[in-house]
Amino acid sequence: MYIGIDLGGTNIAAGLVSEEGKILAQASTPTMNEREAIEIVKDMAMLIDKLASEYGIDKSEIKGVGIGSPGSIDFDNGVVVYSNNLKMEKFPLAEELNKLTGLRVSVDNDANCAAMGEYVEYEDKVKNFIFVTLGTGVGSGIIVDGKMLHGFNGAAGEGGHIVIVRDGEPCTCGRKGCWEAYASVTALIRQTKAAMEKDPDSLMHKVAKDEGKVSGMTSFVAAKQGDKTAQEVVKQYAIYVAEGLTNLENIFQPEMICVGGGISREGDYLLDPVREFVTKNGYNKYMKKTEIVTAKLFNDAGIIGAAMIAR
Amino acid sequence: MYIGIDLGGTNIAAGLVSEEGKILAQASTPTMNEREAIEIVKDMAMLIDKLASEYGIDKSEIKGVGIGSPGSIDFDNGVVVYSNNLKMEKFPLAEELNKLTGLRVSVDNDANCAAMGEYVEYEDKVKNFIFVTLGTGVGSGIIVDGKMLHGFNGAAGEGGHIVIVRDGEPCTCGRKGCWEAYASVTALIRQTKAAMEKDPDSLMHKVAKDEGKVSGMTSFVAAKQGDKTAQEVVKQYAIYVAEGLTNLENIFQPEMICVGGGISREGDYLLDPVREFVTKNGYNKYMKKTEIVTAKLFNDAGIIGAAMIAR
Repeated sequence: MYIGIDLGGTNIAAGLVSEEGKILAQASTPTMNEREAIEIVKDMAMLIDKLASEYGIDKSEIKGVGIGSPGSIDFDNGVVVYSNNLKMEKFPLAEELNKLTGLRVSVDNDANCAAMGEYVEYEDKVKNFIFVTLGTGVGSGIIVDGKMLHGFNGAAGEGGHIVIVRDGEPCTCGRKGCWEAYASVTALIRQTKAAMEKDPDSLMHKVAKDEGKVSGMTSFVAAKQGDKTAQEVVKQYAIYVAEGLTNLENIFQPEMICVGGGISREGDYLLDPVREFVTKNGYNKYMKKTEIVTAKLFNDAGIIGAAMIAR
Repeated sequence: MYIGIDLGGTNIAAGLVSEEGKILAQASTPTMNEREAIEIVKDMAMLIDKLASEYGIDKSEIKGVGIGSPGSIDFDNGVVVYSNNLKMEKFPLAEELNKLTGLRVSVDNDANCAAMGEYVEYEDKVKNFIFVTLGTGVGSGIIVDGKMLHGFNGAAGEGGHIVIVRDGEPCTCGRKGCWEAYASVTALIRQTKAAMEKDPDSLMHKVAKDEGKVSGMTSFVAAKQGDKTAQEVVKQYAIYVAEGLTNLENIFQPEMICVGGGISREGDYLLDPVREFVTKNGYNKYMKKTEIVTAKLFNDAGIIGAAMIAR
């Protein structure tokens, strides 16, 4: 058994996870990200004790702890080098939690952990796997020959930060035209608002009003009801998603690409045009093609994947 | 000892290569790429015999043969799936050469072999390495954790076919705006010609006249002599090169990126602005950075790398 911890800006979610990647028990506590990092570590230790006692096991039965953290992670040393959302700079997270618990601790980037979580189901058959999460940004975790791609400094796998439109939309990373600036839900909302402005008669206005805001769903809801402008937004967004996935396919030729994030719940309505584009535009015209699937675990992926990183 | 064979559209170049990657003897013969594939295989067997007898060894001392071939290669099975320049379609190259020689034969993409050749010098210290060759196209070979990246179908590592300018210049692969369409020497020549057309007074006209044609060198020669228009061409070309390298760095975080192809002989004149751009624009702001170097082996890389693939 392993402990997986998904350290988010809002909550610290922990789970006791089986060897096969099933969650056996779960617990969480608010992150309160403004406080000192060591306080967060203490809460992690508390959650581990709680899970062990609730599930009725001795802590010695826990083989390891994995933590998925936002930010730049030095995987080899279990250090959070930098994180926007936490008071952690060159913080030895693995070492500190090990001191409090005596357990072996691994730390990885949250997107990598989510990737590992979604990967578990396929690991027997699939050796090259890319997980892409479309959310506030575009995160990715890349598995090559069954192992997470970390690079020499632990910071590899930033698939969202491939420029696909030179001198295009500004990206949070400081560059212009990154895939993230076109394929994130943040970008979709921007694209939706721009289309709404141009078409005052679009059904999207009503959908947004009912929802109370323009969201990643707005265009999808209206498109499915036949609104042409919304259909254009969805179509264009699918192309942006597909353009980046084609880039990743040309580089990695993985058996499988898994698309996650809330918007992936749109399923084939989003992915069918994506698949069509990737098949048509991929460099590889003569060999087996990558399969594109949607994520299944969503919020659980972080906990399960973190545990699998520890495994 | 190993045999490395660089199968080009013009010549079949073979070498006897030591365990450490030194060429001990070399021989070549014209490819005559219009003929049947099996004739090419026979010439490869002939070259192997010739190298063994010239170096005075018994064929049994050869531990394996590696072949670098253009096109789509099924690495696991040693099959040339498709190649533009050769009469090979689903051709079992490894098996056929094994039949004629009794030797163990491996086949990989020519860019991968060149990558492996340039990598040998660094393999003790560097585990993640990207070789990019700027030529007619943009080829790349990517080494992750000391192993060549092949993907599940052997076709991975096509770094030249990342779209960096959506809906941009047409690429040979059928997409628009690939890195190759901006950073290849073919693209540089196009960019040079366009700048010359706009500036009839540019020194590039004289340089091209002296050379007999516009080449990848034209802008560099004129730029070094102070021609402003040529300097602009070089500056913009360096940015195109750097934009793609930054993408690859963000994905792989390799210790080292090695830039090859004839144009890389420009050395720091090309690479200094490239390094500056990558350092400024790379996603990783907090960790060790990738070193960018120029290739050293040039034509020999194919032979040495092919031998190392066999090793």
